[in-house]
Amino acid sequence: MEKKKAVVVYSGGQDSTTCLIHARHFYDDIHCITFDYGQRHRAEIDVARELALKLGATAHKVLDVGLLNELAISSLTRDNIPIPTQTEEGIPNTFVPGRNILFLTLAAIYAYQVQADVVITGVCETDFSGYPDCRDEFVKALNHAIVLGMAKDVRFETPLMWLNKAETWALADHWQQLSLIRDETLTCYNGIKGAGCGECAACHLRRKGLETYLSNRKNVMQALQRKINI
Amino acid sequence: MEKKKAVVVYSGGQDSTTCLIHARHFYDDIHCITFDYGQRHRAEIDVARELALKLGATAHKVLDVGLLNELAISSLTRDNIPIPTQTEEGIPNTFVPGRNILFLTLAAIYAYQVQADVVITGVCETDFSGYPDCRDEFVKALNHAIVLGMAKDVRFETPLMWLNKAETWALADHWQQLSLIRDETLTCYNGIKGAGCGECAACHLRRKGLETYLSNRKNVMQALQRKINI
Repeated sequence: MEKKKAVVVYSGGQDSTTCLIHARHFYDDIHCITFDYGQRHRAEIDVARELALKLGATAHKVLDVGLLNELAISSLTRDNIPIPTQTEEGIPNTFVPGRNILFLTLAAIYAYQVQADVVITGVCETDFSGYPDCRDEFVKALNHAIVLGMAKDVRFETPLMWLNKAETWALADHWQQLSLIRDETLTCYNGIKGAGCGECAACHLRRKGLETYLSNRKNVMQALQRKINI
Repeated sequence: MEKKKAVVVYSGGQDSTTCLIHARHFYDDIHCITFDYGQRHRAEIDVARELALKLGATAHKVLDVGLLNELAISSLTRDNIPIPTQTEEGIPNTFVPGRNILFLTLAAIYAYQVQADVVITGVCETDFSGYPDCRDEFVKALNHAIVLGMAKDVRFETPLMWLNKAETWALADHWQQLSLIRDETLTCYNGIKGAGCGECAACHLRRKGLETYLSNRKNVMQALQRKINI
């Protein structure tokens, strides 16, 4: 029987690692792709490499997407383009809108090349932080465009799309990997694995989700099972 | 009055230069973007730089998309991915499907950053050479996805979509730039400007289109005017 093959968009963080452990139960040949845009802690790339290997990915491609920095406003101003008005608070001026559009496009090209039919991504509309390219409607529209543009049925799967953080913890627990997610993934903005710095927004969101899950395991697990097919 | 701003996907070849001279009559602030993926003759990038400047582009961004080579099969095999069956004749094994999907996505991100509402590309369904990501249906679908993903009305314009090569020459002539297109653009696979090597497929297509136009100017120009609004 032919192996079922999938590409997982993989950062080494909680969400994409949960996608990876979930995907292992449905696909037997998994290719991970990690996007390196030079702004993240190198630790994040190292964690992604280690975990992809440990979790049995067939291949792991780390793709340099430094070109994104070339499209940041701070770079474009070198071409004498007027600096736009003050960026929103908290968003660095190297943030590039449409980043996820680019990542999903590259993941689909990678899937085409390795002859995988599926691209799995941990984007989530429930806590999408205002990024329109994490919304379900967008992912479906891009999927449609990419199928037309590559003349191949690549399907985007988004297992976390409608989960909240507590339910994402429940999903890890369902696959008996809660402690791996808790101790070995890296979500912290300050580049600290596991429990993280405890102070940044990512650490807060992650910890709050875990607390909610642990204090109400049964109900959260039931909510999860109503949302996805496990 | 606010300036009308557009991004032109620009290679320095016949088609995109024709788009640029066409766009000048509808937009008064044009930003060109050229994709450098290291496989083309450096002459092509130089021609693009010269012509963008000469034709009055406000800015010209040359973006290094060497990451495409990282997604070519020949690179992926380093990750122990089996080499797929023989590529089709004439297509180098560094060719990456979905290239135009990527270029249009990057052009749209650039447009977002410089606050342009329009991305103009010279893709053409009439002589699309079998690439599905040059087809009108694809461009429209990607446009829809990108508008959703960036939450901004960026519009893709494809003035050459339904033109044949003779009509593209007629369009250049309409804007009184036939000799500039003929003498200063670079389409030749062997990197020779103007008339080119005369031997490669690109040179043949280009010359045949010019001959058809010159031998039947009036009819071709009328056909063009039925197809686009000039």
